Amino acid sequence: MSQLVIVGTVAFDAIETPFGKTDKILGGAATYIGLSAAQYHADGALVSVVGGDFPSEYLELLVSRGMDTSGIEIIKEGKTFFWAGKYHNDMNTRDTLATELNVLADFNPVVPENYRDAAVVLLGNLHPAVQSSVLDQMAEPKLVILDTMNFWMEHTWDALVAVMNRVDVISINDEEARQLTGEYSLVRAAQKIQEMGPKYVIIKKGEHGALLFHKDEVFFAPALPLEEVFDPTGAGDTFAGGFAGFLAQTQDYSFDNMKKAIVHGSALASFCVEKFGTERLQSLTRQELYGRLQQFKQLTQFDIELH
Amino acid sequence: MSQLVIVGTVAFDAIETPFGKTDKILGGAATYIGLSAAQYHADGALVSVVGGDFPSEYLELLVSRGMDTSGIEIIKEGKTFFWAGKYHNDMNTRDTLATELNVLADFNPVVPENYRDAAVVLLGNLHPAVQSSVLDQMAEPKLVILDTMNFWMEHTWDALVAVMNRVDVISINDEEARQLTGEYSLVRAAQKIQEMGPKYVIIKKGEHGALLFHKDEVFFAPALPLEEVFDPTGAGDTFAGGFAGFLAQTQDYSFDNMKKAIVHGSALASFCVEKFGTERLQSLTRQELYGRLQQFKQLTQFDIELH
Repeated sequence: MSQLVIVGTVAFDAIETPFGKTDKILGGAATYIGLSAAQYHADGALVSVVGGDFPSEYLELLVSRGMDTSGIEIIKEGKTFFWAGKYHNDMNTRDTLATELNVLADFNPVVPENYRDAAVVLLGNLHPAVQSSVLDQMAEPKLVILDTMNFWMEHTWDALVAVMNRVDVISINDEEARQLTGEYSLVRAAQKIQEMGPKYVIIKKGEHGALLFHKDEVFFAPALPLEEVFDPTGAGDTFAGGFAGFLAQTQDYSFDNMKKAIVHGSALASFCVEKFGTERLQSLTRQELYGRLQQFKQLTQFDIELH
Repeated sequence: MSQLVIVGTVAFDAIETPFGKTDKILGGAATYIGLSAAQYHADGALVSVVGGDFPSEYLELLVSRGMDTSGIEIIKEGKTFFWAGKYHNDMNTRDTLATELNVLADFNPVVPENYRDAAVVLLGNLHPAVQSSVLDQMAEPKLVILDTMNFWMEHTWDALVAVMNRVDVISINDEEARQLTGEYSLVRAAQKIQEMGPKYVIIKKGEHGALLFHKDEVFFAPALPLEEVFDPTGAGDTFAGGFAGFLAQTQDYSFDNMKKAIVHGSALASFCVEKFGTERLQSLTRQELYGRLQQFKQLTQFDIELH
C-alpha cells in the first residue's frame, strides 16, 4: 500500500452560516484532507501540531478512519489553533471573526521516520517555509501537491516561489491564481504558474467547479449542483484530500488519471458542504461515494458523434 | 428537413470592450441565433423587424448562411433598433449606453405562412406578449424554447407567466433564475420554474457554463476556458441558436439529445466571443465546429470504474 503524507493544520473551528452556528468543533486543513483521503486504500499520515486542550477523541476519530497520527505533535502546555468565521448569505464570502495561532505559531513539522519515503505528499495551506521544511525531510516522493492562499502571496512571496519550484501540482482558487500571476484569464494564469514550477495546475472555482491544466491539456469538473450548501468550510481541503488519496491508491500520476482524481475530489467536496464542519465526512462510506461518482457521470457525460 | 422559426431582434449594436470599440455593426438576438442555428440542417426562418436604414448586405448575409428572411418586416420610414454597451474589465458586467427601440416599439411579428407548422420555435428575448403572439400563429410545434430576461420579470410579470406556461424549454441566466423564483439555490430555482410551465430549464452561468434541468435529472456543460474573451455580446443567443438548431436537425427532443444540444450551443458560444459582434460566426465552418466539439469532449469526459 502506497504511503501518503499530509501536512497542515489540525484545529478548532467556530462556524456561523445562515443555517446555524457551532461552538468550537473539529477543524483544520489536515483534518479535512485526512478524513477525505481516508476513503482510499493508502497508508496516510498526518503531520501537524495541537495543544493540550485538544480532545483525545478527535485523534481517535482520525485513527479510526485509518489515519496515522504519530506525526501530530501535542504541546501539552499550549493551546490548539483556533479559527472562527461567519458566512454571508450567498455562502461564497465570509468574514474571519478570530484567528488564534497558538501552537501553530512555532510549528516545526517532523515527518515520522517510517513515512519519509512516502510516494505522495500533500502540503496543506501553511507558511511556505514550513511546507519546504517538510520536503527537506522526504526521500524522493513521486508526487508533491501544494495548497496555498493569497495571504502567503502578500506576506512571504520569496518563500512561496521557492516551494512552488519544488512541487508537481498546485491547488489554488481562481482569485488567487489571478493575484499570483496578474492575469485575469485563467488559461493564461495557469500557463504562468506552470512556468513557476508546478507542471499541473488545479484552479478551484468553488461552486463553479475546478480546472486542471497541464501543458496544452485542460480538464474541467463541475461542482455537484446542490439544493443547499450548509457549510462550505473545508470543501477545498476535502477536494485536495480526495485528489491525493485517489492518486496514492492508484499510483498512476498521469494526466488521465488526474482527471479521475479531480472527479473524486469534487464528489467528496460535495459531501463535505452538506453538514457543519467534518460531520458528514466522519460517517461517509465508500458506497455513498460511489453513488455520488455515478451522479457526476450523469451530470457531465455525453455522447457526440463527430461526422 | 425540419423547420425552425426564430423570433427576436435584428439590430445595430455599438460595442466597447477593453480590446477596442466598434461603430454601428450588425447585432440583435435573432441575428446571433440565426447565424448559430445555420450550422445545422434545418430550414430556419427569422421573424423580426428593421428600419429603412438596415443595409441589404446584412439581410443577404443571413440568406447566404441559409436563413429565410421573408419574415423580417422592413419599415422603410422607420429606424432599426439600436443598442450600445460598454463592458467592464472583467467582461462579466456591462453598462448600457443607449437603447433606441425605434421600429421595435411597435413590433407585430408575422410568421410566414409556409413556416406556421414548423417543428421548433425559438422565442428570443422580447416582450412576452409579443412572444405569445408568435405562438398564436403556430400550428402545433414539437418544441418551443423561450429566452427572457429580468426586465420582463420587473415590468410585465403577468404576460411573462402566461408565455412561460406555453413553452417546453426556458433559457435564462443564473441571476434571472434567482430573481424569477426568489430561490438562491439553482436546483430549487429550476424546480420552481418547472412548476411554472417549462419542463426543461436551462440556466446559463456565462463563463461558468450552463445547466439543464428536467425533473430529477441535471446535466452540466462548461464554457470552454479561453485565453481571452474578446466580446461577450450575443454569446447567450448563439448558445440558444446552437441548441435549437441541433434539435431541429436531429428531431429528437429527449433529455439525452438535449445534453448534446447544450454542448453544441456551448461550442458555438465559444466561437462567438472570439471576435467583435457576429464576425466570427459569419465565417464559421462546420469543420471548425467539429474541432471544438472534440475539445469539449477532452475537457469534460472521464472514465471512472465503479467497483
